Amino acid sequence: MKIGVPKEIKVHEYRVGLTPGSVKEYIFHGHAVMVETQAGAGIGASDEEYVAAGATIVDTAAEVFAANDMIVKVKEPQPSEWVQLREGQILYTYLHLAPDAAQTKGLLESGVTAVAYETVTDASGALPLLAPMSEVAGRLSLQAAAKGLEKHEGGEGLLIGGVPGVAPANVVVIGGGVVGLNAAKMAIGMGADVTILDRSVPRLRYLDDVFAGRVKTVFSTKDALETACFAADAVFGGVLIPGADDPKLVP
Amino acid sequence: MKIGVPKEIKVHEYRVGLTPGSVKEYIFHGHAVMVETQAGAGIGASDEEYVAAGATIVDTAAEVFAANDMIVKVKEPQPSEWVQLREGQILYTYLHLAPDAAQTKGLLESGVTAVAYETVTDASGALPLLAPMSEVAGRLSLQAAAKGLEKHEGGEGLLIGGVPGVAPANVVVIGGGVVGLNAAKMAIGMGADVTILDRSVPRLRYLDDVFAGRVKTVFSTKDALETACFAADAVFGGVLIPGADDPKLVP
Amino acid sequence: MKIGVPKEIKVHEYRVGLTPGSVKEYIFHGHAVMVETQAGAGIGASDEEYVAAGATIVDTAAEVFAANDMIVKVKEPQPSEWVQLREGQILYTYLHLAPDAAQTKGLLESGVTAVAYETVTDASGALPLLAPMSEVAGRLSLQAAAKGLEKHEGGEGLLIGGVPGVAPANVVVIGGGVVGLNAAKMAIGMGADVTILDRSVPRLRYLDDVFAGRVKTVFSTKDALETACFAADAVFGGVLIPGADDPKLVP
Amino acid sequence: MKIGVPKEIKVHEYRVGLTPGSVKEYIFHGHAVMVETQAGAGIGASDEEYVAAGATIVDTAAEVFAANDMIVKVKEPQPSEWVQLREGQILYTYLHLAPDAAQTKGLLESGVTAVAYETVTDASGALPLLAPMSEVAGRLSLQAAAKGLEKHEGGEGLLIGGVPGVAPANVVVIGGGVVGLNAAKMAIGMGADVTILDRSVPRLRYLDDVFAGRVKTVFSTKDALETACFAADAVFGGVLIPGADDPKLVP
Amino acid sequence: MKIGVPKEIKVHEYRVGLTPGSVKEYIFHGHAVMVETQAGAGIGASDEEYVAAGATIVDTAAEVFAANDMIVKVKEPQPSEWVQLREGQILYTYLHLAPDAAQTKGLLESGVTAVAYETVTDASGALPLLAPMSEVAGRLSLQAAAKGLEKHEGGEGLLIGGVPGVAPANVVVIGGGVVGLNAAKMAIGMGADVTILDRSVPRLRYLDDVFAGRVKTVFSTKDALETACFAADAVFGGVLIPGADDPKLVP
Amino acid sequence: MKIGVPKEIKVHEYRVGLTPGSVKEYIFHGHAVMVETQAGAGIGASDEEYVAAGATIVDTAAEVFAANDMIVKVKEPQPSEWVQLREGQILYTYLHLAPDAAQTKGLLESGVTAVAYETVTDASGALPLLAPMSEVAGRLSLQAAAKGLEKHEGGEGLLIGGVPGVAPANVVVIGGGVVGLNAAKMAIGMGADVTILDRSVPRLRYLDDVFAGRVKTVFSTKDALETACFAADAVFGGVLIPGADDPKLVP
Repeated sequence: MKIGVPKEIKVHEYRVGLTPGSVKEYIFHGHAVMVETQAGAGIGASDEEYVAAGATIVDTAAEVFAANDMIVKVKEPQPSEWVQLREGQILYTYLHLAPDAAQTKGLLESGVTAVAYETVTDASGALPLLAPMSEVAGRLSLQAAAKGLEKHEGGEGLLIGGVPGVAPANVVVIGGGVVGLNAAKMAIGMGADVTILDRSVPRLRYLDDVFAGRVKTVFSTKDALETACFAADAVFGGVLIPGADDPKLVP
Repeated sequence: MKIGVPKEIKVHEYRVGLTPGSVKEYIFHGHAVMVETQAGAGIGASDEEYVAAGATIVDTAAEVFAANDMIVKVKEPQPSEWVQLREGQILYTYLHLAPDAAQTKGLLESGVTAVAYETVTDASGALPLLAPMSEVAGRLSLQAAAKGLEKHEGGEGLLIGGVPGVAPANVVVIGGGVVGLNAAKMAIGMGADVTILDRSVPRLRYLDDVFAGRVKTVFSTKDALETACFAADAVFGGVLIPGADDPKLVP
Repeated sequence: MKIGVPKEIKVHEYRVGLTPGSVKEYIFHGHAVMVETQAGAGIGASDEEYVAAGATIVDTAAEVFAANDMIVKVKEPQPSEWVQLREGQILYTYLHLAPDAAQTKGLLESGVTAVAYETVTDASGALPLLAPMSEVAGRLSLQAAAKGLEKHEGGEGLLIGGVPGVAPANVVVIGGGVVGLNAAKMAIGMGADVTILDRSVPRLRYLDDVFAGRVKTVFSTKDALETACFAADAVFGGVLIPGADDPKLVP
Repeated sequence: MKIGVPKEIKVHEYRVGLTPGSVKEYIFHGHAVMVETQAGAGIGASDEEYVAAGATIVDTAAEVFAANDMIVKVKEPQPSEWVQLREGQILYTYLHLAPDAAQTKGLLESGVTAVAYETVTDASGALPLLAPMSEVAGRLSLQAAAKGLEKHEGGEGLLIGGVPGVAPANVVVIGGGVVGLNAAKMAIGMGADVTILDRSVPRLRYLDDVFAGRVKTVFSTKDALETACFAADAVFGGVLIPGADDPKLVP
Repeated sequence: MKIGVPKEIKVHEYRVGLTPGSVKEYIFHGHAVMVETQAGAGIGASDEEYVAAGATIVDTAAEVFAANDMIVKVKEPQPSEWVQLREGQILYTYLHLAPDAAQTKGLLESGVTAVAYETVTDASGALPLLAPMSEVAGRLSLQAAAKGLEKHEGGEGLLIGGVPGVAPANVVVIGGGVVGLNAAKMAIGMGADVTILDRSVPRLRYLDDVFAGRVKTVFSTKDALETACFAADAVFGGVLIPGADDPKLVP
Repeated sequence: MKIGVPKEIKVHEYRVGLTPGSVKEYIFHGHAVMVETQAGAGIGASDEEYVAAGATIVDTAAEVFAANDMIVKVKEPQPSEWVQLREGQILYTYLHLAPDAAQTKGLLESGVTAVAYETVTDASGALPLLAPMSEVAGRLSLQAAAKGLEKHEGGEGLLIGGVPGVAPANVVVIGGGVVGLNAAKMAIGMGADVTILDRSVPRLRYLDDVFAGRVKTVFSTKDALETACFAADAVFGGVLIPGADDPKLVP
């Protein structure tokens, strides 16, 4: 199959549909890959690396859209991209169509076969292309919080892990799913006093097993949430993945 | 040297001056050991085990006191024992003479050379024969507390480590010396939420290193103590070993 | 729905059907809760806390049974309670009917719809309302054993975790299910030398993973059991939850 | 049932079909066990131990094959054994028939009902009688590698774990299945710098949970494999169990 | 003694000489404490909290300087403060006089007895009032680095700990002293691949013991430094405390 | 200073006095380094690497001995080397003169100033150039033992760490000094059931702290040693460093 990777054009999107390593994998399996010049600039991957991996570099997105069977992107296509898609072509990217009628219409008119990353489901019903985003979100949330607690960022001047002689911050993680587990890993690692709330006792049991005494697990009720959050220096609530991560805190 | 081990006669003292293993060590180094029959009954060591280790068994304490150069005991000698001690003989045991004028007088009159375990000091100024007692005290304190928190013992019906979904008890350890470190080890092991207070920051730093995020270390001031104890389900204060273990909480 | 919580009347039962936190959860979901005065006394929950959570307090159990759609209890109803139950009412509590023909008859005559906690089964076939009891049992077993090994409790005067220089107790856990895993957690935490036997190798594999070298896992045969128990200072066998916890040791 | 255990006759096979402990288990369940003399010599189990476990000892394999309903072995039967098997008898051992037409024909002619360990499948589709071999292989691989890196074995003179001041070896484990997880456990334990590659992200997630920061997990692509292996001092690839352990590295 | 705490007036200094908890400690030991109004505002401590701790609140720094035997501050006194100090009074604060001739002259002219925090030395030659600053610096450095590696902060868009399937950042810590140990704790906790270099092998040995396989320790030579830093995503060098933290990397 | 590194000529010695990295360090501090061609071949360091580090390569040892102020070696000089040493020159290497009168005489006759690595003592009385050898010995001992327990090496066919369902080997480490601590680290890492004996209780206390429940520490008496060794599958005794590592087991 001929696979094309245009440069992302949405504002503040630095990622790219395929890394040079992924290109090498496609080539290894017998496909051809065409990449728009500078598509990897935002992640520090040069055209030379793509060429070394086996890709062809072209100068314009137009060439990429025109010449390939499947277009691999990160973000939903923009209006200028809709018109370059066509029937018989596959678009493989995040779409998030629900709140985006214009895009939906644009894709339908193009006739493209679009596969939305966020809807890909594995045999166990999990969402394999969303989970890594949740992992990143969970881990990143702690460093955002750590920064936000610094004085010159407008915070209270609190160090997550304290130091010997000064107790650490009290961190509450609402929901022990993918986001919550990863937030808790970072919070524990930074030395915080960590409490995780969840409505699934089997999940709390697993967390109790793998964190081996480093977190307090609390079954989540309205009362438990209020008590925990009232005592906390920082609260993390994960809502990216439906299920355990969904605290539904408000009435 | 000829070493004698009489059976302890103080009420509720089940220990014995030398275990069969210790007897074997003395024999190995060329000494002779005489043990009063049933001296090891309280720790489950039979006369046969002492004989196998190389000791001679005799029927009475009188024979032990009469025939040996050094008497090894656990508790301070009782009045009936003072009169059996003599000049030129060594007594090796706990004495705790300070509050016990009668024993002091009895020992002086006997002419015995008495070495009190509790005063033996090593090159670094530590008390090697008291430290193990502090270790036992620290570890035992948690199981006493765990039991004391049970409902049918008159406690609040609180489980030290909680279970998945129920937060653990908040345990405060005052003093991070020998007693405190061992109390903390058990508290951590039982799954508690543990805070240690101490006036020595280098000691708190060591605890932070070896407990690797499993305790909260707090520099001990009157205010910090009050705050910690107010929030605690159980408080442990160690005063057996002078120094870091001495909280001097009262005005 | 109108939910009623009478005070438990069985001897030595200090628990209560709903904590103030649970009451708040029911209120939050639109139900009304009526609690008998002093129902929470055994767990240290005052009438004021129930009122703050949104409950109504009444003076007698009779009022609770008469006025509510669902009665939430802990223990099986006693004869004086059977006669207050009625058709169209739900009873939600532990029942353990198998060996209790009198209660079974009493409930049938009352016409109540009774849901026994111990029979509630989740999608995976597990018993979610029994598992926490097994967790408590497993964790509590170690502190009972620790106390039982103390000299003044008639034990051998053995400290579970030893101290530096003195090896710890050898603890054998028969069955690595919910009870066993929790007993093992406490045994490890208290510093014991721990062996777990189970007939499920996948379960032993999971224990090997999460305990990371802190337990010895042994496939359970009659011979392995005898060998392990012969060497042990303390043996824990879990039989509360059918399955892995069921050692069936006797012929 | 009457169960027979002949001595293994294949070259370099020191194992035996049943240990004395396993014999005891069969006896306990009401079966009779007959063992060829010296069958356990290779694992250090004497005829006396088998007798103590309840077995009968006989002098020849011929007696074992003739008198029993089921023959329990380790390795596939050799030509001299095929002719002793018969219809109505069960053979329980590893067979690995695929590349071994002669054995297949021999067994078919004997009329025996043969159960190959390597094909026994549990409810979840796993291979319970192969997994322990994979566990042994994974753990053993590290000690083979450690030895192979020694100078006098022809290696580079590299110590897996380094020492303080000297960085450890870089160990790459290809496939995080049963073999890989066990190889990684040993590599971590020996102090190596460990990277595991696998194509299953849920598996990498589990490894990240239980190894708690002690391994680097990398999604396996051709590029990732090459990068990791290029930097490695030792590479472990597990192919015993189909699935995650199957790196299929070559084009 | 009468102790005074003026509000800090140096730009960007939010700290205060005594917290309410420290005030309580002074009061408990029989001293009197006077605090300038709003002195604790920067750390969120209100005048009411100081009063509750036993302090007197006054409206101006002038009153504080005039009425007290010892002035406790954080930063070196500013010119407007020099003139308020006097002979017979103690000033207790950080001074850092070496590069600050004007302040030195101002203090000499005031006749005050000044104790510089940064010169207080304990019995072992360590600097107890600088070490906590180094601990904070070490721990904070990682969250600064984590933020700095984020894309929108101008970094490479690298997550310190990676996620399952993506290897973590390679973090190099130069110097395993107080700063380095604390930087390493955070780096490990955030899931990084951590290397520590130091010239003291006993120190590396201690780090190897307490980090238990979670860091690579490397004896620091020019070559080792270059090799490590060349491979690193982030490098931390600690120079606050002389000694092990002092890499002196340049010729 | 001019520093020379001849190729080692003792049988089975593959090491070299200076690695390329060490050469770079000397050059950086202003010295000149001359290396005999192929001196680093045994550790995989080519002449090119030495040149890149700043060394001069010469063809013969004679040139190295003739031209330099200090000769850096690994093993004691051989007779052919004694005669090339001279007064005013420094020899820096392991010497082990005690049992080697011929070498002693050779060195005295040469007039060289010889510094023996094994006698270099630091401020605390430790032997910094021997300790790393003890660390290597301790870590290597376990992989030697692991190999020695394999069946085809003549062992019992025992896997140090067992597998899930099969208990690990019982490893006894005599002496908790440098050798013992490192042997224990590897034994723990490989999953063994580890007991360490030592006569120093403070040392056992440190081991108990840093191994956090993963070893059994036992005070070493003749009886304790016999008991432990009788139960062991493998015994390690460290005698390289005087002190804690010196078991003096024999009468």
